[in-house]
This record gives sequence, structure tokens and C-alpha cells, in this order.
Amino acid sequence: MKVFIIHAHPESQSFNGALTRAAIASLVEAGHEVKVSGLYEMGWQPVSGRDNFTTVKDPSYFKQQLEEVYATEQNGFAPDIQAELEKLDWCDVLIFQFPLWWFGLPAILKGWVDRVFVMGKIYGGGAWYDNGYFKGKRAFCSVTMGGPAAMYSESGLNGDINQILFPINHGIFYFVGFDVLPPYLVHSPVKLSDSERQARIAEYALYVLGTGSRAPIEYKRLADYNANFVARPDGKSS
Amino acid sequence: MKVFIIHAHPESQSFNGALTRAAIASLVEAGHEVKVSGLYEMGWQPVSGRDNFTTVKDPSYFKQQLEEVYATEQNGFAPDIQAELEKLDWCDVLIFQFPLWWFGLPAILKGWVDRVFVMGKIYGGGAWYDNGYFKGKRAFCSVTMGGPAAMYSESGLNGDINQILFPINHGIFYFVGFDVLPPYLVHSPVKLSDSERQARIAEYALYVLGTGSRAPIEYKRLADYNANFVARPDGKSS
Repeated sequence: MKVFIIHAHPESQSFNGALTRAAIASLVEAGHEVKVSGLYEMGWQPVSGRDNFTTVKDPSYFKQQLEEVYATEQNGFAPDIQAELEKLDWCDVLIFQFPLWWFGLPAILKGWVDRVFVMGKIYGGGAWYDNGYFKGKRAFCSVTMGGPAAMYSESGLNGDINQILFPINHGIFYFVGFDVLPPYLVHSPVKLSDSERQARIAEYALYVLGTGSRAPIEYKRLADYNANFVARPDGKSS
Repeated sequence: MKVFIIHAHPESQSFNGALTRAAIASLVEAGHEVKVSGLYEMGWQPVSGRDNFTTVKDPSYFKQQLEEVYATEQNGFAPDIQAELEKLDWCDVLIFQFPLWWFGLPAILKGWVDRVFVMGKIYGGGAWYDNGYFKGKRAFCSVTMGGPAAMYSESGLNGDINQILFPINHGIFYFVGFDVLPPYLVHSPVKLSDSERQARIAEYALYVLGTGSRAPIEYKRLADYNANFVARPDGKSS
């Protein structure tokens, strides 16, 4: 496997850091290849705007998708975006490693998606969902969060973690064609004992090796929808 | 009403820009007060880290929540964060005005939440949900998105917009105590005719005036949960 890890945590000594280092070591030892974009370490700039481009299609009105399509045609992406696009093309597996902040991606990682998943090259013109650009590749979230599992259950105070991650799993990964694997979750790492933490890190080191054989989340397919993008009554449940 | 609008769009001439300008004019004309944080216009820096603080609690390991609690005690927030905290304390109503990017907040707005909603002052120690810091205040999203309403329905291709906005409405607004009003949604503004666009802008100008009397989304309350933060069987549905 060629594995691309997007790592988003401001403290390299964090549990998130330990998970990414364990994944790299385990994958490399098993003969896989790994690239990592450590967003804090790279000083990634997450604000999407004219800086995304070296080209300008319309100088009087900034419409991002229009500029993205033009930059796709003209090779007009800023070097930081171009480098990420090349790593995405290279990989078979994409992993987002992050702490759940306000029930979503840290801004630095949301802005990696906002800037790198460009219309033209990555989606548009019928390329989306199971006909998406990354069809045949796999992606998943590896997430730490501050409360116990029960709090993130369907009847838990914070709501179902699968509902919370739906905009990422379905709206980001599946939208661009990835097969989406179940998330790897660690609850309240700060409350674990040292030996519990080591056990979870060892578990994750094994977990990443099973990426190729893990069953993806079953989402509906484009063929399950009518011309108005509403599911046909006989379609599978999502 | 004292209304605080967080506006997040890179193009001031956009439909989002027109909505915010219409809201301001309408509210001011009706005698309400308005403050606006135009995040792109301010050059808001959305990456959360040591720059959030003028104080340092632990120089050897960066744990954001620990630093936030310390900064709350020591008045140690960076000036850009302190200014937003003061506007939050001032307001009765908080509005997020944004285009739905990758089924969530643009990174610049996610990073406003990541940096400004600080543990200590804003949440923690039992202050959350219906016991939250902003109890009695109201908040809602005003969102533009690129597809028709059917595509964002429960059986639509993109998924239910209420599920997509759940991490924002429940996980951000309600978590810190706001009464959360239903979102104001505009689908595919780019496909509207000029007169349709003007009609939506006029509609929104009236909509914001009704903020005080609109019924909030009904979420469960802390009293509906047991000690493990799981809903009691006799609790209301969320």
C-alpha cells in the first residue's frame, strides 16, 4: 500500500503524534510506503482564496470553483496545493489523523480540504461519489476525542459519532470517490493509564495493516438515485 | 437585539456579502445594534496554537484546554481572541453567515470557533448545553450551498441538511448554551435570476427581524440524561 497520512495536531508529543509515528513504523516495517503531511509542522495555510492559485481567470470577482477549473487547465495551483495533489495521486490510502475539535476537523485540516480538493481535477462533470476521482482508493479517520464512548452513542449527550463524522466520511471522502472505512476512535486518551495508552498505540499499529481488507461503510450509489438526486424507494438504506 | 454576525466569504460582492449587508441595514433600521466580524476582511488567523495566548502555563507540552483555563484566570488571551470574546459577551444573537464548503464551515470560520470558544471562560465545570455560558442567547446559521433542496433532503444524495449541520448547531451553538434557531438556507444562489436573488435578500432582511420570536430547535436537556450521559428511556427525542 501507498499510504498518505494528513496529521493535524499542534503538539508533536501528543497521543495523536504517537499514533501517527506508530502507523508509519508499522507500515514501513511491513513493506508499505508512507507519506505524511504534518500540517502544523509544515505551517499549512488553511484560508482558501486567491493565494490558492498562480493563475487568475476573473480578476473582478473571486469565484473559487471557476478559478479551480481554470487552474486545472492551466497548471495554475500554488506550489503548496500542487504538492498535496501529487501525494493524493500517488496514494492508495488516505488517513486523517486528528483530535475532534468542536465536533469536526481542526481548522488547519478543514482548510487542507477546502484548498486541495479542487473542482476540475478532483470533482465536477459527473465525477463524484461512486464515480469519483479517487474510485478504488480507501480513506478513513483516526480520531481522538474528549469524552467516553457512551457520550457519543446514538442516545448519548454529544450525539452519535457516526452522525458527527458523516460530513467528513460521506461529504468529503465519499464525495470524491474514496471507499470509506470505519473510523479508528480513541476516547479520552488523557484519562488512560500509560499501559492502556501503549496498548491502544500497539492496536493502531496493527489496525493500519488491515486497511486493505477492512469492509467499507455501505453508502448508497449514484444508481440508487433518481434524476432529482432523491433515492428511489427500492434503494438500499445508507 | 444586539446581533453579532460572523461573516466568512472570500468575495465581498458574493451573495453571502449581500445577505450580511441586508441583515445589517434591516436590523439597524429597526433600532437593533449590530457588530460584524468579517473574517476574510479582518485577515483572521484560524490556526489554533500557542499564538492564542500571551501567557504560558506549560512550556514543555502544549495542551490547549489547559492553556485556555490558565489564560482565563490570567487574562492571557491574544488580542484578536479577546476582542471576539468581548463581542460575544455583548451580543444577544450570534449569526454564522457562510457558504457550505465540504459540508461544513469554511476553515477560517471553523478556526474562529477553535480559537475563541475557550475552556474556562466559555465552557467547562458543568457549563455546557442547557447549562451553558450563553444560556438565554440565540444563534443560527445562514448558509448558501451549491445544490437544490431535494439533494439535501433525508433521502437526497448529499444527505439531510439537518444531519450535515448537526455538528455546528448541536456541537458548537448548543454545546455552549445558545438556543439554536433553524438555519436560513439558500440553495444554488448562482442559478437564481436577478429578481429571485433580490427576493431572497429581501426575505432574509425580514427573517433576521423575527429572530427573537422564532422557535428554537428542540434538543434534549441535561436532565434527560443519566450519570453516564446516556438519555433516559423516558426522555424526549432529540
